[in-house]
Amino acid sequence: MAVYTDVANDDLADFLKQYDIGELLSYKGIAEGVENSNYLMHTSKGAYILTLYEKRVALDDLPYFLGLMAHLCERGVTCPQPQKTRDGAVYSSLAGRPAAIINFLEGMWPRRPSAVHCAGVGDALARMHVAGQDFPLKRANNLSVEGWRHLLDLAAPRADTVQPGLRAFLETELNDLAAHWPSDLPQGVIHADLFPDNVFFLGDKLSGLIDFPFSCNDMLAYDVAICVNAWCFEPDFSFNATKARALLNAYNKVRPLTPAEQAAMPLLARGSALRFLLTRLVDYLNVPEGAFVKPKDPLEYVRKLRFHQSVKSMADYGLEAAGQPA
Amino acid sequence: MAVYTDVANDDLADFLKQYDIGELLSYKGIAEGVENSNYLMHTSKGAYILTLYEKRVALDDLPYFLGLMAHLCERGVTCPQPQKTRDGAVYSSLAGRPAAIINFLEGMWPRRPSAVHCAGVGDALARMHVAGQDFPLKRANNLSVEGWRHLLDLAAPRADTVQPGLRAFLETELNDLAAHWPSDLPQGVIHADLFPDNVFFLGDKLSGLIDFPFSCNDMLAYDVAICVNAWCFEPDFSFNATKARALLNAYNKVRPLTPAEQAAMPLLARGSALRFLLTRLVDYLNVPEGAFVKPKDPLEYVRKLRFHQSVKSMADYGLEAAGQPA
Repeated sequence: MAVYTDVANDDLADFLKQYDIGELLSYKGIAEGVENSNYLMHTSKGAYILTLYEKRVALDDLPYFLGLMAHLCERGVTCPQPQKTRDGAVYSSLAGRPAAIINFLEGMWPRRPSAVHCAGVGDALARMHVAGQDFPLKRANNLSVEGWRHLLDLAAPRADTVQPGLRAFLETELNDLAAHWPSDLPQGVIHADLFPDNVFFLGDKLSGLIDFPFSCNDMLAYDVAICVNAWCFEPDFSFNATKARALLNAYNKVRPLTPAEQAAMPLLARGSALRFLLTRLVDYLNVPEGAFVKPKDPLEYVRKLRFHQSVKSMADYGLEAAGQPA
Repeated sequence: MAVYTDVANDDLADFLKQYDIGELLSYKGIAEGVENSNYLMHTSKGAYILTLYEKRVALDDLPYFLGLMAHLCERGVTCPQPQKTRDGAVYSSLAGRPAAIINFLEGMWPRRPSAVHCAGVGDALARMHVAGQDFPLKRANNLSVEGWRHLLDLAAPRADTVQPGLRAFLETELNDLAAHWPSDLPQGVIHADLFPDNVFFLGDKLSGLIDFPFSCNDMLAYDVAICVNAWCFEPDFSFNATKARALLNAYNKVRPLTPAEQAAMPLLARGSALRFLLTRLVDYLNVPEGAFVKPKDPLEYVRKLRFHQSVKSMADYGLEAAGQPA
C-alpha cells in the first residue's frame, strides 16, 4: 500500500520517449502492490500502469510475468497488455529500477463476490489455462510442497503462540500432503493468486485478470483449488456451495476437469489452504514493530483447511465425479 | 501517503447515483494527502477525485474549501471543480465519512521548478487573489501569529535537541514578528500552501492549482511571501533571484503590489518561513516510533528565515520599490 520511489516528471517524460504511448498528461502513485511502486498514468493515448520493481522482485522473472500477460492478451484473455519500447523490450529502467508499463484495465474488484462473479472467475481461469498451454517459458512454483516446508521451519518455533497446538497441526498436515501430493495431473501456467482483488468486473461482467507475480508452472487443478479457497467462503468462513458450484461449473464448461483432477481436488484444496496459511503465519510472526499494515489473519486458513479435511469427494464442492456439474 | 478507508465498489456505485457524472468504471486509492483518503475514479464521463475526509478535517470548513474552488472555477482560475449532487450539495457521506468529488486535473507538479514555472505560479496566484475578492465566505488563518505562538509552546522544550540555540532563536524571532506584524495590508482569500506539489503544469504551461485545505482569509502579500519561500530557493537553500524576479514580476503584472505590501515583504517572508519551520519542527519532534514517513527537515526553514532577516528591501527579491520589475 505504498509508493516507495518518487519519480520526477522530467525523468518520466524522458523515459516515455522510448515508448509509443503518447504524451504524458498526469501520473499518480496508487495504493496497490505491497512490494512495488505503481503509478496510474494518463497520456494522450490512454491510461497505463507504470510499475517500478523494488528489491524483492527477481529481475530474472520479469520476462516470464510480462511475457505471459502479452501471450494471454494475444489469445483473447483480458489481462493487462505490456507495452513494448521501440526496441521491443517489455521492461526498461527508471529511477535506477526495472520499470514496465502495462495498459490500464477499467473495472473493479468485488468486495462482496456473488455466485455470478464466481462463475465469471471459473470461466476466465479455464480460458487462461487453455491460452497458457503454448506459452514457451517455464517458472517453478516456489510456494509448493518444498516451499511450505521452508515456511513451516520459519514459523514452527512460535506457531503455538498464535494458537495452541498449531505447530503439531501444521506438521501433521504438511507431512500428509507431502506424502500424497500428486505428480501426474495436467500441468500448465497457473495464476496462483487469483483472489477477488485480482479480478476486475464491470457490473457482473469480468473485465480482466491482473497481478501475475506468483504465476508459474504447476498443476492446473491446483489453481482451481486456490480459487475455491479465495472465492467460495463467506466472511464467517462458512463454505458457500452455491458459489463453488458456479465457479467449478463455469470452469468445467471451458476446460473439463479430468477424473484424476476431480479425485485430487480435496487434497489440492488442503494444500492451497496450507500455502496461504503458512505465508500469512510467517508474515504475522514477523510484523515490524510499529508497522502500519495489519497482517492478515492466518487462522482464517486453519478454518478453511479443516473444512477441506472433512470433504470426501468432488461432489461436496458441487461438481459430480463424472465431470458433469452437480 | 495512505488510503485509510477502503470503499466497497457497490457502496461507491450507490453513492455515485446522487451525482450526474456517469457510470463508474474504476477507482484507485492514490498516494496523496496525508490526512484524507483519495481515489482517482474513471467514469463514463471522465476522471474525478473522490475524497473521504478523515477525522482531522473540520466538517464546518468544507463549504469554505469546496465553495472556494467552485467560485474560482467560475472565474476562470484552473482548479478542481467540485461536483454537486442532484440536490446541489458539494459534499455528501460515504463509508461513514464526509465525501466530496472534484474533477481530475491533468498535469504534473514540477520536481525541479524553473523560472518559467515560477512565472506561471506568480501569474496564477495573482489571478486567484483577484478572483477571490468577491468570495463571500470567511475563514480565519489558524496558522498566523497566534497559531505560531501555540506551536512554539509545543516545540520549545525540545527545540534545542534539534539544533542548539534553536529555542532562543525562535522566541526572539516570534516576538519581533508579533511586534511588527502588519494589520493594514490588502486582505483576501489566500491559498496558504502553494508549494510545487500543489501546482500542475503540462510542459511549461500551468494547468491547475490544487489542494485548498489551508486556504483562508489573510493578507494577500503573505501568500506571495509563502510562494517565494516555496519556489525560489535551490535544493542547497541558496536564494535564486532569477526565480523570485520571475514570480514577483508575473504576479505584479496581474495584481500590482502596493508600496506598503512591498515594504512589508521581507517581514512577511520571515513570518512565512517561521510558520513552516514551526509546523515541521512540531511534526519532527512528534514522529511516532517506527513511523514509515520521514518528517521534513525543519532546519531548511531556519536557513530561509536567516536569509530573509538579511534582506533590506523588496529590491533584494527582484522587484523595484516603485512596483516595477527590477
